[in-house]
Amino acid sequence: MTESVYKIIELVGSSPVSWEEATKNAVKSAGLTLRDLRIAEVVTLDMKIGEDGKETTFRARVKVSFKIVSD
Amino acid sequence: MTESVYKIIELVGSSPVSWEEATKNAVKSAGLTLRDLRIAEVVTLDMKIGEDGKETTFRARVKVSFKIVSD
Amino acid sequence: MTESVYKIIELVGSSPVSWEEATKNAVKSAGLTLRDLRIAEVVTLDMKIGEDGKETTFRARVKVSFKIVSD
Amino acid sequence: MTESVYKIIELVGSSPVSWEEATKNAVKSAGLTLRDLRIAEVVTLDMKIGEDGKETTFRARVKVSFKIVSD
Amino acid sequence: MTESVYKIIELVGSSPVSWEEATKNAVKSAGLTLRDLRIAEVVTLDMKIGEDGKETTFRARVKVSFKIVSD
Amino acid sequence: MTESVYKIIELVGSSPVSWEEATKNAVKSAGLTLRDLRIAEVVTLDMKIGEDGKETTFRARVKVSFKIVSD
Amino acid sequence: MTESVYKIIELVGSSPVSWEEATKNAVKSAGLTLRDLRIAEVVTLDMKIGEDGKETTFRARVKVSFKIVSD
Amino acid sequence: MTESVYKIIELVGSSPVSWEEATKNAVKSAGLTLRDLRIAEVVTLDMKIGEDGKETTFRARVKVSFKIVSD
Amino acid sequence: MTESVYKIIELVGSSPVSWEEATKNAVKSAGLTLRDLRIAEVVTLDMKIGEDGKETTFRARVKVSFKIVSD
Amino acid sequence: MTESVYKIIELVGSSPVSWEEATKNAVKSAGLTLRDLRIAEVVTLDMKIGEDGKETTFRARVKVSFKIVSD
Amino acid sequence: MTESVYKIIELVGSSPVSWEEATKNAVKSAGLTLRDLRIAEVVTLDMKIGEDGKETTFRARVKVSFKIVSD
Amino acid sequence: MTESVYKIIELVGSSPVSWEEATKNAVKSAGLTLRDLRIAEVVTLDMKIGEDGKETTFRARVKVSFKIVSD
Repeated sequence: MTESVYKIIELVGSSPVSWEEATKNAVKSAGLTLRDLRIAEVVTLDMKIGEDGKETTFRARVKVSFKIVSD
Repeated sequence: MTESVYKIIELVGSSPVSWEEATKNAVKSAGLTLRDLRIAEVVTLDMKIGEDGKETTFRARVKVSFKIVSD
Repeated sequence: MTESVYKIIELVGSSPVSWEEATKNAVKSAGLTLRDLRIAEVVTLDMKIGEDGKETTFRARVKVSFKIVSD
Repeated sequence: MTESVYKIIELVGSSPVSWEEATKNAVKSAGLTLRDLRIAEVVTLDMKIGEDGKETTFRARVKVSFKIVSD
Repeated sequence: MTESVYKIIELVGSSPVSWEEATKNAVKSAGLTLRDLRIAEVVTLDMKIGEDGKETTFRARVKVSFKIVSD
Repeated sequence: MTESVYKIIELVGSSPVSWEEATKNAVKSAGLTLRDLRIAEVVTLDMKIGEDGKETTFRARVKVSFKIVSD
Repeated sequence: MTESVYKIIELVGSSPVSWEEATKNAVKSAGLTLRDLRIAEVVTLDMKIGEDGKETTFRARVKVSFKIVSD
Repeated sequence: MTESVYKIIELVGSSPVSWEEATKNAVKSAGLTLRDLRIAEVVTLDMKIGEDGKETTFRARVKVSFKIVSD
Repeated sequence: MTESVYKIIELVGSSPVSWEEATKNAVKSAGLTLRDLRIAEVVTLDMKIGEDGKETTFRARVKVSFKIVSD
Repeated sequence: MTESVYKIIELVGSSPVSWEEATKNAVKSAGLTLRDLRIAEVVTLDMKIGEDGKETTFRARVKVSFKIVSD
Repeated sequence: MTESVYKIIELVGSSPVSWEEATKNAVKSAGLTLRDLRIAEVVTLDMKIGEDGKETTFRARVKVSFKIVSD
Repeated sequence: MTESVYKIIELVGSSPVSWEEATKNAVKSAGLTLRDLRIAEVVTLDMKIGEDGKETTFRARVKVSFKIVSD
């Protein structure tokens, strides 16, 4: 009987709204080519400040796991 | 004179909305049985992805401190 | 709708055989009083060496999560 | 040709609303005296619980980088 | 033959004198309800500064292990 | 003269038997598509507990390195 | 309503007596120019050994937080 | 409006000259198949010692980020 | 009254069978020249993959403590 | 007798040549306004890749300590 | 011109009085056989609790550096 | 069949030129008394600043592994 195996890739998503949206954007882009996405673990969070000091972008660096071998 | 002593427990709260809500849910459940809750420190954040890839749940793993001996 | 909440406790199990057995022993002791045990994460592993240098005990420090509030 | 040099300061911002707002408040206060703010990296997040257990404050400890020497 | 199992709880003790006293206070409070206390590992140390900047309190965050199953 | 370059991917293998088997399963799945596998470094180990509290699965999260450019 | 903002600076204090004294010396020097000092977190501790191997100096590297914007 | 998403891969480059060259070699190999390379963060550095103890190779383990979705 | 002092050395043991055996091999080699071995803490675990991808060696990097001054 | 106190600031220097040069540039800029610079500890190293993938900049994030109170 | 080289060994000292004394005891034992001791960095601190719960021993795990090659 | 065992020692090398040279100097000093040196892992890097602020020394703290038991 084979055991399930997961692969983990590291992505950085961004959003002008929130870190939750930034995480969703990263997972959405992964979802375009990958199946069985399970969990997105937050590695780091930061906020990029625009030249004018006003406009800000929230960035979430996440590790996304997805199944590559099913048990 | 006795010195105050705090205890720290580790909880994982969840919410479909945000990591702030997930943290509040964890603290609320602790508050049912404990007094003098002080601070909830975030240990890790992740996002669980539903089978259909759409429905997501935000999870916050937090350490909650509360007073067990008052000075 | 309430969201599920998990609690995490930290235990050290031991075994003369292996770290897997030591982890199972820790979880077994937790299972006597707790329900819905989910995952035991390994924090650290070590091996205690007997006075004669021969007899060894494998110890696994683990964090065990279990459900305290069901969604 | 001189090379650009950045300085990094550590701040704790707070907000009753969210960790994003808390981060913005920290950066806003830095922006009053500093130019060329670039990035705010999240170091830790926590939530302070009011005496009544209800009122909560989200706190974000961030490292803010800004340019002190331009190339 | 059952193998011994230890549980680990996390406490914060305080003292106006020293970090050693703060650690002893945390362990003393644990000792009121628990047997077989073995080791208190220091997690972090800090010093709280009074409003007047004079009065200081030393705080020790420690993990205390105690036996819950005897071999 | 070109210098050798290695790539590192992150996988989670599982096994009902041991963490060694779980690691071998992860590497086996990688070996289906990749050559020159060199080393599997353990990142984290955990044990998943079945609904009945009995059936357990050992999971090993590993980083596997393999050569992509030969010197 | 503005939210309070704290700044954190990193200092190394020293003392021939103890790490508590070394921490107090670091905070005392900060207190000469700063108000509202709150907490000194210990980052690292070390002991410098004199040329003769006898005379020792205890050094505490601490992060001191103080209020720069009041709510 | 879509938000930009970056992917991060982990590589080990090597060079008999320096860690800077080793990093450039890793990035050069990535550049053969990937566009929009942004930053190579150093994870670890080491030096491999030849059998004769003379010949040495500098190795740099780096995380390279590149854009996969443009805003 | 002198206080006991322990020294800690770092070793890497290996075995084709398991990480427990690899740890025992490291301690056995230390035991040839040292007395009063107490504990072997696991620092890291990895698995070396043979050229043919089949033959694997489990390696355990451990810190072994032993008494050098008795109280 | 007052004890010496050091302050630590965090800077990011850069150079097209090497990480040593980047560290020197950071310290040089600090030296313009500060005396008694002692040590620059490397926190992280990275390499920024130009738009054309060719031009690279080595960046060193360092913590620089300098004396603010002399014993 | 040769450059100075330092070696670092890891010791655990203990004392019924304080962590400062425990560190001094570790360094004293090293000083019996080694010259040019420079710095003892604290790695971890803990407190061993006697069988009766009263008698306590403070233990300091330290890294001691000493010169083995003079410039 | 005995399994190979490696020992790891920690050294600090220095050089006025570069961190690569500092690492080589540390390994060279180890090589005077030890055989089968394999790898020098970088633990930390820093730069010591001379009294005049000009003369700088690059220091590399490394862990050097060498074989003590051959398979």
